[in-house]
Amino acid sequence: MKKTLRIGVIGLGRLGYQHTMNVTRTMGARLAAVSDPFPAALERAVEDFGVTGYADYKEMLKDPAVDAVVIATPTQTHYDVLMDVIAARKPIFVEKPITFTVEEAEKIQKAVEEAGLYLQVGFMRRFDPGHVAAKKMIESGACGKPIYIHDCQRDPNGPPPAYVPQSGGLFVDMGIHDLDVARWLMGCEITEIYAQGAVLKHEFLKELNDVDDGQMLLKFQNGGLGMIEISRNANDVYDTRTEVIGLEKSVFVGQEQLTPFKTVGGQEIVFDMANWCLGRFKDAYELEMAAFVENVLAGKPSPVTAYDGMMGIKLALTATASFRENKPIHLTY
Amino acid sequence: MKKTLRIGVIGLGRLGYQHTMNVTRTMGARLAAVSDPFPAALERAVEDFGVTGYADYKEMLKDPAVDAVVIATPTQTHYDVLMDVIAARKPIFVEKPITFTVEEAEKIQKAVEEAGLYLQVGFMRRFDPGHVAAKKMIESGACGKPIYIHDCQRDPNGPPPAYVPQSGGLFVDMGIHDLDVARWLMGCEITEIYAQGAVLKHEFLKELNDVDDGQMLLKFQNGGLGMIEISRNANDVYDTRTEVIGLEKSVFVGQEQLTPFKTVGGQEIVFDMANWCLGRFKDAYELEMAAFVENVLAGKPSPVTAYDGMMGIKLALTATASFRENKPIHLTY
Amino acid sequence: MKKTLRIGVIGLGRLGYQHTMNVTRTMGARLAAVSDPFPAALERAVEDFGVTGYADYKEMLKDPAVDAVVIATPTQTHYDVLMDVIAARKPIFVEKPITFTVEEAEKIQKAVEEAGLYLQVGFMRRFDPGHVAAKKMIESGACGKPIYIHDCQRDPNGPPPAYVPQSGGLFVDMGIHDLDVARWLMGCEITEIYAQGAVLKHEFLKELNDVDDGQMLLKFQNGGLGMIEISRNANDVYDTRTEVIGLEKSVFVGQEQLTPFKTVGGQEIVFDMANWCLGRFKDAYELEMAAFVENVLAGKPSPVTAYDGMMGIKLALTATASFRENKPIHLTY
Amino acid sequence: MKKTLRIGVIGLGRLGYQHTMNVTRTMGARLAAVSDPFPAALERAVEDFGVTGYADYKEMLKDPAVDAVVIATPTQTHYDVLMDVIAARKPIFVEKPITFTVEEAEKIQKAVEEAGLYLQVGFMRRFDPGHVAAKKMIESGACGKPIYIHDCQRDPNGPPPAYVPQSGGLFVDMGIHDLDVARWLMGCEITEIYAQGAVLKHEFLKELNDVDDGQMLLKFQNGGLGMIEISRNANDVYDTRTEVIGLEKSVFVGQEQLTPFKTVGGQEIVFDMANWCLGRFKDAYELEMAAFVENVLAGKPSPVTAYDGMMGIKLALTATASFRENKPIHLTY
Repeated sequence: MKKTLRIGVIGLGRLGYQHTMNVTRTMGARLAAVSDPFPAALERAVEDFGVTGYADYKEMLKDPAVDAVVIATPTQTHYDVLMDVIAARKPIFVEKPITFTVEEAEKIQKAVEEAGLYLQVGFMRRFDPGHVAAKKMIESGACGKPIYIHDCQRDPNGPPPAYVPQSGGLFVDMGIHDLDVARWLMGCEITEIYAQGAVLKHEFLKELNDVDDGQMLLKFQNGGLGMIEISRNANDVYDTRTEVIGLEKSVFVGQEQLTPFKTVGGQEIVFDMANWCLGRFKDAYELEMAAFVENVLAGKPSPVTAYDGMMGIKLALTATASFRENKPIHLTY
Repeated sequence: MKKTLRIGVIGLGRLGYQHTMNVTRTMGARLAAVSDPFPAALERAVEDFGVTGYADYKEMLKDPAVDAVVIATPTQTHYDVLMDVIAARKPIFVEKPITFTVEEAEKIQKAVEEAGLYLQVGFMRRFDPGHVAAKKMIESGACGKPIYIHDCQRDPNGPPPAYVPQSGGLFVDMGIHDLDVARWLMGCEITEIYAQGAVLKHEFLKELNDVDDGQMLLKFQNGGLGMIEISRNANDVYDTRTEVIGLEKSVFVGQEQLTPFKTVGGQEIVFDMANWCLGRFKDAYELEMAAFVENVLAGKPSPVTAYDGMMGIKLALTATASFRENKPIHLTY
Repeated sequence: MKKTLRIGVIGLGRLGYQHTMNVTRTMGARLAAVSDPFPAALERAVEDFGVTGYADYKEMLKDPAVDAVVIATPTQTHYDVLMDVIAARKPIFVEKPITFTVEEAEKIQKAVEEAGLYLQVGFMRRFDPGHVAAKKMIESGACGKPIYIHDCQRDPNGPPPAYVPQSGGLFVDMGIHDLDVARWLMGCEITEIYAQGAVLKHEFLKELNDVDDGQMLLKFQNGGLGMIEISRNANDVYDTRTEVIGLEKSVFVGQEQLTPFKTVGGQEIVFDMANWCLGRFKDAYELEMAAFVENVLAGKPSPVTAYDGMMGIKLALTATASFRENKPIHLTY
Repeated sequence: MKKTLRIGVIGLGRLGYQHTMNVTRTMGARLAAVSDPFPAALERAVEDFGVTGYADYKEMLKDPAVDAVVIATPTQTHYDVLMDVIAARKPIFVEKPITFTVEEAEKIQKAVEEAGLYLQVGFMRRFDPGHVAAKKMIESGACGKPIYIHDCQRDPNGPPPAYVPQSGGLFVDMGIHDLDVARWLMGCEITEIYAQGAVLKHEFLKELNDVDDGQMLLKFQNGGLGMIEISRNANDVYDTRTEVIGLEKSVFVGQEQLTPFKTVGGQEIVFDMANWCLGRFKDAYELEMAAFVENVLAGKPSPVTAYDGMMGIKLALTATASFRENKPIHLTY
C-alpha cells in the first residue's frame, strides 16, 4: 500500500480552494500542484500552499508528481476536463454536478468503467456524520423498511446574479444534493418526480429564468413517498434537514445550533445557526476528501460513483422538466 | 356582562369527554348538562361530573339551564345537530369537520349568520401558544410577507379500523387541521392543491379505501407556495410542526420534548415526545374552550367561524379529489 | 368513597389565588369558601369564584360545607392557622415553609400525627412531570445508586422590598425547594451543609440583611455529594434545573423552552423561557392540588408530610446558619 | 513575515499524537520532527507522518529545521524540558499543567519573560468557539459586569489506574481547566476556594489517594461568586458546561448533541453526546494550534501565557489543599 497520495487540484474558486485546504489537512495526502486559468486565483493558491501552479491543467496532468486529481472547475467544463484526466489515468474526485447533461455523464461513466478508474463525486452529505448515522441505522435494519423521506435545504440568501446562468438552475444547483440523499437513504431509485417552483423573494431571478423556491413530490421503487423543499430564502441561515420514516423507527438528520453558546436574558434564549453550506458541512467536506485518499491508496471502490453522478444530474433535470411542464414525470430503470 | 356560561355537551366520546373536563376547568363556565345516546358513555359522564344527563340532545336543548352547547358527536350527525342547536339559538362550539360536505357547511354558515349566532369550530391549533406566537409575529409585520409554509402532522399509529369509514379519510380527518393552519398563518386563501397518498404501513386501510400517508403541494393567493405532509406512521410519537418563511424572518412552531426530563448514559441522551394529539395540544384544547366562554360572555365575535369551518372541509375535499384524480386542482374565490 | 371534596382557601395573595383557581380546575374538588382579612382580596375572590367569603378564617372553619382547607397565608401566621385547622380536624394543604422555626414545625407534625390528619406541604416540584420522571427512574433502580445531585434555581428578578422581611431570607424562601428536592431525589437525608451568599445585583437587599445569591455544598447519608445554586439574578428568566448522577445512568430535569415557537433569521434562533415560577411549574401546581384531593377522598397518605415540611425548614435554617457563621454544619438523624 | 513555522513535537502519547496531527492540519505550519523516548510511539509517528524522529528531545532541539516546539510529555518532566527549550530559544506550546509546583511554574515564567520567548499553555477551552463567543460577549459589555460563574466538567469514566499517580489528582488534572476558565471569563482573579471531594464510584481511587468527584465554591476579586463541579462519573458521556451570569445578560456554553442525528420511535427521541474530551473539544485543539502558529509567525503575544499556566497550577493546588484541610483558603494578589 502506497503511503501518500499526491494530489493536484483543478479549479481554485471558493469550493476548489476549500478542497485544496482540505487536501493539506488529510492524513495520507500531499498537495502536489494546483491549476487555474485565472492568474489571480492561481497565484494566491501557489503562495498560500507553496506548491507548483499550472495555468493549463493539461500541463499539470503530465506532472509525474501528481497521483490523483480533484476537479472543481465550473460544471460546463467538467466533461472535457474529466475526459482528459481519464486519458491521463488519474484517480478523480469531481464536484457535483458531474456534468450538465445525462448524455455526457453516461459517457464519463462508461469511460471510467472501461478504464477501471476511481471516480468519486462530491456529494459531501454522504460523509456528514449525521447522514452517515442515518444511513447506518437504516442499513442495520433497526428502522424497518424506509417508507418516507422528508428533506429540505434552504440557502441563506439569493445567488450572485453572475453565477445563475452557470448554476444549472435551482433544481440542479441545490436539488441535486437532496435527490442524491433521497435515493441513497431510501435505498432504491426514484420513479416519479413532480416539481413546482416560483420566485418568492429574489425578483432578479425572473429575468434569468430561474426560481428561488422549489418543492418536489417523489415516488420510490419500494413504494415509498417523499417530499423535498429547496429555497434560497432562509433569511440568513443555512438549514438542511432530512427525515426518513421507517416501518419501525424514524431517523432525523439536521443541525440547528452551530456554536455551543447561548445568550439568555429578557425571557429569551438566543443561539446561532450555520449561515452557509461550508459551515454546516465543514466536517463532511473534510471527510469526503479523507475517504477519497484512503480509498485510492487502499484500492477500495468509490462510495459515490460516476453512476451516482449520472443519476444525480438525471434526477435534477427531471425535476426541472417537471417544473417547466407542470406535470409528474416517470422514470424507469 | 353575564358572569357564568352554563354549557351542555353533546357527544361524549374521547374528545367530547375531554371538552367536558375542560368546561369544568374554565373560569366563567359551568357544566350544566351532558348528552349521548349511548347509555354507558352518558352514565359515566353523569357520575364523573355530577350533572344532568340527556339521552336525547333535543331534550337538553329545552333545558333552560343550558346557555351554550358544545358539539362533539360523529361528523355525519353534525348537520342535523347544528340545525337543531341553531333553531334553539344557543351559542355553539363544534368539533371539526363542521360537516362532511361543502353544501351542508354553507347552509350552516348561512343559518348561523342569519341567526346572528356565535359558532366556533374546533381548530384547536389556532389556540396553541406556539401557533399563536407565530400568528402574532407574522401579523406584527416582523417577518415580512409570508411566502412559504411547510407543515407536517404525523400521527403515532394507524386508526382503529371501525373509525376509518366515519373519519372522512386521511385528507379530511387529519389534513383539515394543516390546511386550516396554512390559510390562517399565510393570511390568504389557497388557490391550488396537488395531493398524493399511499398506504405505506397499515395494509388494512387498502380495503377501507383510505391511505396512511399523504403529501400536498399548495399555492396561495399572495403568490406563495407550501407543502403539507400527513401520516399515521410516526412510530409512536405525535409530531406536528409548522414553519412559515417570511421575506425577512421565519417562524417555526413545534414541540419536540414533552416532559422536561432526560436520561443520560452510554453516550446517549433520551427524552420523550408527545404520543398523541391530546398530549401535544392539551393547553390548546383548554384555551379554545376558554376563548369560547370568554367571547360568548363578552359578546365578541368567533375567532374560528362557520366560514372557516366550511373552508376547512372544502380544502380537505379538494385535496382528496386531487389525490383520487392525480392532478392539481384550482380553487377560485 | 366520597365523590367531592369541598375546599376552603385561607389566604388570597398571589399563590392563594392560584390555588383557588386550581381547586376549581380539579376533578373531585369543589371550591366551598375563601378567606382573607384584606377586604379587597376577599371581595375579588368572592366575585371571581362566586363562593362564600370569610374575613376571619376561624368562621370559615365552622362552616359545615368546608371539608378541607388550603392554607396560603404569610408564613409567620402558619403555626396559629395550622393549629386551628388541626383542632377543626380538616385535611390540610399548606404552602411552604410549613413554619419559620423547627420547634413550631415539630409541634405541627406531632399534632397532625396525633390527630391522624392528612397534611400536605406545597413542595410543588415533587409533582412536576420532569421531577416525577426522575424520581421514578431512580426508584426503578435503572440509574443505580444516586451519588451526586446538582441543582440550581434562579429567579428572574429581585423580590419586592416589602416581601423580604417576611420571606425568611434567600436560603429559606428559595432554597427550601432545592433542599427538599435534594433529599427526595437522593433518597436519603443531608448530613452536612456549607453555604455561602452575597448581594451581587440587588443592592437594597444589604439593608434588609438578605442576599440575592447563595451556593451550598451538601453531603448525604449515603455518602453522596451535591451542590445547590440559588439566585434572584437570572436576568428575566426563571431557570430551575436538577441533575442526579447515579452509578449507572444520570437523569436531568429542566425546561428550557416555554412556548413551542422559534424565530429564525439573521443567523440566529430565538425562543422564550419561563419568566416566573408559576409559569415553569403551572402543571405542578395543578397536579399537587389534584393529588391532595384524590388522596383525601381515597384515604391515602400524604406524599409530602409534616415531617417533610419540618425537614425543609430545618435544612433551610441550617443553610442560613452555615452562611452566617461561614462554616459547614453537620446534621444528625 | 515568515510563511511557515516548522514544528517539532516532544511527547507522543494520546494528546501529543493529536497535537502532531493538528500541526499537519494547520495552515502555515509544517511538522518538522517528533520525539519520544519510547521506541514504539516514536516509530509509529515517524511512519505515520514521514518526518524525522528523535529518541532524545535534546537532539531535536539542535535540529535547525525545528523553529518551534510542542511539549506534550508527562507533567513531571515539563520543568526540565521547558528549561531546555527556553535555552534553545524556541517558541513553545506546552500542555497543561505547565508544571506540578508553583515554584517551578514561576521559574518558567521568569525564564520565558527574560528570554522574551513566546509560550502558550494548552488551555484549549479558551479556543472553543462556544467559550470564545462567551468571552467576546462579556468583553463587549453586553452582559454587564459578570457576577456569577457556574461550571461543570464531567469525565465519562474513571482514569486508568496507572495514570492516577502522575495526574496530579482530580483537582489538578481536571479542575485546572475549570479554574482557568473561571478566572478568564470572570475577568478577574479568584480570592477564595473551598473544595470538597469524595470517591463516589471508582473505589480503586481510594488506595491511590485520589477522588472521582470534586466540588468547589469560589469567590472573585470583583465580589462575584461561583461554583465548579468536576467528576469522572458521567456514565459514558463527556459533559462540560459553563454559565456566566452578568448584571444584564447571561451566557451559557455547552454542547449537548454531538452528531446532528436523532432516532425517533416508541415515544422517545435519542441522540448522542461527546464521550471524551477530544471529541467535545476537537475544534478547540485545532484552533489553539492554529493560534500558536499564527501568533508566532506574526510576532503577536501569547493569549495563554506562562503566568496563566502558573495561576492554573496555583489554583488547582489551592483547591487540593482546601479539600485536604477541609477549609476555605484565601488567595491574595
